[in-house]
Amino acid sequence: MGDPWQECMDYAVILARQAGEMIREALKTEMDVMIKSSPADLVTVTDQKVEKMLMSSIKEKYPYHSFIGEESVAAGEKTVFTDKPTWIIDPIDGTTNFVHRGVFTMEFGVVYSCVEDKMYTGRKGKGAFCNGQKLQVSKQEDITKSLLVTELGSSRKPETLRIILSNMGKLCSIPIHGIRSVGTAAVNMCLVATGGADAYYEMGIHCWDMAGAGIIVTEAGGVLMDVTGEPFDLMSRRIIAANNIELAKRIAKEIEIIPLQRDDES
Amino acid sequence: MGDPWQECMDYAVILARQAGEMIREALKTEMDVMIKSSPADLVTVTDQKVEKMLMSSIKEKYPYHSFIGEESVAAGEKTVFTDKPTWIIDPIDGTTNFVHRGVFTMEFGVVYSCVEDKMYTGRKGKGAFCNGQKLQVSKQEDITKSLLVTELGSSRKPETLRIILSNMGKLCSIPIHGIRSVGTAAVNMCLVATGGADAYYEMGIHCWDMAGAGIIVTEAGGVLMDVTGEPFDLMSRRIIAANNIELAKRIAKEIEIIPLQRDDES
Repeated sequence: MGDPWQECMDYAVILARQAGEMIREALKTEMDVMIKSSPADLVTVTDQKVEKMLMSSIKEKYPYHSFIGEESVAAGEKTVFTDKPTWIIDPIDGTTNFVHRGVFTMEFGVVYSCVEDKMYTGRKGKGAFCNGQKLQVSKQEDITKSLLVTELGSSRKPETLRIILSNMGKLCSIPIHGIRSVGTAAVNMCLVATGGADAYYEMGIHCWDMAGAGIIVTEAGGVLMDVTGEPFDLMSRRIIAANNIELAKRIAKEIEIIPLQRDDES
Repeated sequence: MGDPWQECMDYAVILARQAGEMIREALKTEMDVMIKSSPADLVTVTDQKVEKMLMSSIKEKYPYHSFIGEESVAAGEKTVFTDKPTWIIDPIDGTTNFVHRGVFTMEFGVVYSCVEDKMYTGRKGKGAFCNGQKLQVSKQEDITKSLLVTELGSSRKPETLRIILSNMGKLCSIPIHGIRSVGTAAVNMCLVATGGADAYYEMGIHCWDMAGAGIIVTEAGGVLMDVTGEPFDLMSRRIIAANNIELAKRIAKEIEIIPLQRDDES
């Protein structure tokens, strides 16, 4: 019989590497860049090509499965969960996938950082890995020595920017060791999983930005939490991914909320 | 006879790789971390060991040369330029070196990013390279599409933090494409040299943070400028390193200055 989720995950790893090759190839040549909503949110022809390749490959192999993908949502499709196993796909974050079934459970996550050639995987109850090496979050419990990762995000609304910068300022003033921004939610979260950073937080991202890396963080021993300190909600567009619950709570205490439309609202 | 600067640079590359090996080795094991001035400014025993190794190696080979190094300055030595060739050393930024002679000239710069195993070099009039590949800054002329790199820095003074965050906010509101922080001045500047980012700016860093990467940026076709829009001053503790002069000037226009003690003041 085999393990059906393991089989899906192995397939996701193959597809992620294939997508990475397409992206790397495109990066080599000058790309025609189309502007989506703002200059901070560029989407290239490649993203759409990669998402199409991923969806058609998965549909062929698993005709019964469902999808949520950034490009298809942008094109007007809805973010709805059914009882069917669901793949959440984001081609530009280096390919993030995970499978969902019935009652809300993440079965596995795959994040491929194609520029660095790092394949991150997490499987429920089976641990998280990067290129085959087991991942473990840091043991840092002292917030004043912690290294956080976050992003300024793509919104240029003055009020949103004000809150984002004010949150960074409040966290720095605790004080903390520092804040880094490597550019994508998924890679920031994988950094937490490796122990390279102690915690990640952000508001304004989408379920496809955090789904795959979420299980990689928890399987590496970390925690996911809403920025309010409440339980994590994949559709809320907000996340704290931390090495432990105390650090997550301490960060939540400083964060002012940005009002956002949920991923499952239309 | 040979070219004496080329010989120095070749030696710097050898030493940088050696330093990188020491740092990588130390990263593998848990390190005893000593706290310097603030939690955001950690210095490890390794930094000091690496700087000692570099200085004693260079002293042995070039007994007539001078040094400026972060650890030795922290230990009370002065940042003074003489007429002698001067090596500026920073072990933690992945090893930054450059040679100075008489009238203020940077002869070469070497930055080794040991975690990624990337060796960046720049030689006056001879171009900049990463692992042997020639570097070229980006051609981006449109500030609204530009990707900047900077850091929140290590100061936790409320007024300094306020200016840093306000500058990020003003730049984002131009708008720009985004801001990233990879953690070290030298690597941020090398990112500009590769074209991966369009410009870097920061205040509060030191000459050893920017010396080596500075010539790598200019040899890759980029420009250095003071954050006031005036000519770059290595001792000012401030820098804009950009792909072109227009982008640098546009950034300078938005920047509020942080009052700082110069590197050559005591």
